[in-house]
Amino acid sequence: MTDPQRVVVLAHEKFPDRAKTATGVLKYADYDVVAVLDRDNPGTSAADHRRDLPDVPVVASMADAPDADALLVGISPIGGAFDETWRDDVRTALERGCDLISGLHYFLAEDEEFARLADEHGCDINDVRKPRDDLGVAQGKSADVDAEVVLTVGTDCSVGKMTATLELVEAARERGIDAGFIPTGQTGIMIAGWGNPIDRVVSDFTAGAVEEMILEKGDEHDVLFVEGQGSIVHPAYSAVTCGILHGSMADKLVLCHEATREAIHGYEEFALPDLSEYVSLYENLADPVHEADVVAGMLNTSHVDDDVEAAEAVDAFADELGVPAVDPVRFGAADLVDEVF
Amino acid sequence: MTDPQRVVVLAHEKFPDRAKTATGVLKYADYDVVAVLDRDNPGTSAADHRRDLPDVPVVASMADAPDADALLVGISPIGGAFDETWRDDVRTALERGCDLISGLHYFLAEDEEFARLADEHGCDINDVRKPRDDLGVAQGKSADVDAEVVLTVGTDCSVGKMTATLELVEAARERGIDAGFIPTGQTGIMIAGWGNPIDRVVSDFTAGAVEEMILEKGDEHDVLFVEGQGSIVHPAYSAVTCGILHGSMADKLVLCHEATREAIHGYEEFALPDLSEYVSLYENLADPVHEADVVAGMLNTSHVDDDVEAAEAVDAFADELGVPAVDPVRFGAADLVDEVF
Repeated sequence: MTDPQRVVVLAHEKFPDRAKTATGVLKYADYDVVAVLDRDNPGTSAADHRRDLPDVPVVASMADAPDADALLVGISPIGGAFDETWRDDVRTALERGCDLISGLHYFLAEDEEFARLADEHGCDINDVRKPRDDLGVAQGKSADVDAEVVLTVGTDCSVGKMTATLELVEAARERGIDAGFIPTGQTGIMIAGWGNPIDRVVSDFTAGAVEEMILEKGDEHDVLFVEGQGSIVHPAYSAVTCGILHGSMADKLVLCHEATREAIHGYEEFALPDLSEYVSLYENLADPVHEADVVAGMLNTSHVDDDVEAAEAVDAFADELGVPAVDPVRFGAADLVDEVF
Repeated sequence: MTDPQRVVVLAHEKFPDRAKTATGVLKYADYDVVAVLDRDNPGTSAADHRRDLPDVPVVASMADAPDADALLVGISPIGGAFDETWRDDVRTALERGCDLISGLHYFLAEDEEFARLADEHGCDINDVRKPRDDLGVAQGKSADVDAEVVLTVGTDCSVGKMTATLELVEAARERGIDAGFIPTGQTGIMIAGWGNPIDRVVSDFTAGAVEEMILEKGDEHDVLFVEGQGSIVHPAYSAVTCGILHGSMADKLVLCHEATREAIHGYEEFALPDLSEYVSLYENLADPVHEADVVAGMLNTSHVDDDVEAAEAVDAFADELGVPAVDPVRFGAADLVDEVF
C-alpha cells in the first residue's frame, strides 16, 4: 500500500458512529489525518463528536481540505458499493495529486475516470480489499518465527477484536515491548499500511495468507499481535476464523466479547455458547497444529453507560474466563499487558 | 456444467494410479466414459489396470477415440498447469464438436486457441475450478431443508472422503433410499455435473457456497451426502473444512481415515491426534451452529495388501470410534447403510 503522511478521510453522513474505518484510522494510524470529510458536520472537530477521537477538523468536501497526500474512504455502504455523491471529492483528490486508499468492494482502480485521472496526475489507487494474486497455501511454519504470536479471537463478529488488538499493541509499546501488528481486515490494513484481506482470499489460502504476514514480520518484533476475524461458532464466517487460528499458529489467545451480546449478530436464532465453551473450542482446535491458551479477555462495554456497571461486567467476565480481563478502550490495557505479556 | 452423455477422459502417462479424477469419473459418474486417453497404454482396457474399474478402452489420442460429446481432463500436473503435449487432443476434441470439462488451475476458456475453436464449433468450455461470481455469505439456513444431511469429515487430506461419500450414495440408493450427492471439489463436481469448488471460493463465502447447494437439493432427496474436504486439524486447509461443517449444518458425520496414516500428508511434523480427539473436535465445533454426531467411520485400507489384516484394521477403527465402520471400497458400504441411515 501507499505509505502516506497526511491523509484526508471521507466519512460523509456517517461520522463517527457508522464510520468504523474512519474512527479506527483517526485513533490508531501512524500517519496524520488532516481532515475528515462529512458534509453533515463542517466546521466541527472529530473530538467534538467522540471524546476518544483527536482534534481533527471536519470539512464538507475535498475542496475545503488542507494539503494531503492521500484520500482514504472511511465508510462502506451496504454491499461495498461506491456512492456517486463522493465522485467530486475523489476527482478533486486525484487532481490534487492524492493517492486513493479504499476498502470498498467496488474497486476504484477499475473506475475508468479515476484510473485515467490517477494516470494523469501520478497517483496510486490502493483497493485494499483486493487480495494479491500470488498468495498460496500455508506451510505450517508460523511457529518458527522469533516473536511470540498473540491472536485476538471472538465470541462473535463486531465485538471489538481489531480495537482490542490495536490497544494491546499501543499498551505493549508504551511498556517498552517491541510489538508488531498483523492486520487481517480492510480497516486494519488501512491503519497498518499493509496486509492481506483474509476474508477475501481464496479459501484454500486462508491460513497461507496469514502465515505469509507472520513470516514477514515475525523476526522484526518480540511480540506480534494478530487481528482476529469472525468467530469459531459463526454460521457464515467460522472458516476465516479457523484459518487465522491455524495459519498464525498463535502462542496466546485473547478472547474478545461484547457485554450484553447473547446471540450471533444478524443471526439471532444462534445463541452464543457459554464463555467456557469458547475457551475449550479455541484451545482444543488450536492444539493439534500449535498449542495455544486463552490468557486474557477483552470486554467491549461501549453499550454500558455507567462506569461502575462496566467495571463490574469486566470483573464478571474475568471470573468466568479465569484469566485477567479489561475493557481496553474504557479502562486501558496497560495493567493487563504488565500481567500477561 | 455441460450435461454430457459420452465422455472421453484424458489421463496421459498417469493412468490409473496418479489419475484420481479419471478413476473417480470412471467409477462414479452417471454419464458413459467411452475412452481413456493414455499414450503409454493404448490397446488396453481400464479394467486391465485396476479390478475396480469398468471395461473402457484406453487409446493413444483423441484421434483414436470413438464418438463423444465431451473431453474431460482427468489428471492434474503439480500446480494445475496445462501440459502442452495435450494440445493436439484438446484441439481435435473441439474440432469434433466436443465440450471441454477441466479442473486445471489454467482455465481452458482463457486459452486463445481453445476459445476460438470452441466458438467456431459451438462447444462449451467448463472450467470447474472457477467459482461462480454470484456466491455470498451463508444465512444459517441449511438445517431448514427436509433432507437429513450427512457430511464426511477426515483425519487428513486424501484419505478417501470423496470416494466414501460416493460409495455411501450408491449403497443408499441400492437400499432404496432417495440419496443426493453434494460435491465440493473439482472431481466431485465433474462426477456430479454441477457444484461449487469450495476450496476456490472467497474465504468469506466458504459456508455460503455449501449452503447454496444444500438449499438447492435439500428438498429433492431424503438424505444428502456432502463431500467433505481437508481436515479440521490441517495446518493449511482447516478453514475449508470448518466452512463446510458449519455451512452444511450436517446432522450426521462420517469420519474418514486412512489405515497406517500417522502424520498430516506433506506436513509430516504434524502428528495426527487420537481418533477420539477428532470426534470431540468435530462434534464440539459443529454443536453451536447445529448439533451433529459422528455416526460411522470409513477406513481406507488400500495400502494394506492382506484382506484379513484390512478387516482387522477396520474392526479396530470401529472399536476406537465406538461406531460402525467399514472400508466401503474393499468391503462395500451396504451393511453400514442399513445400520446407520
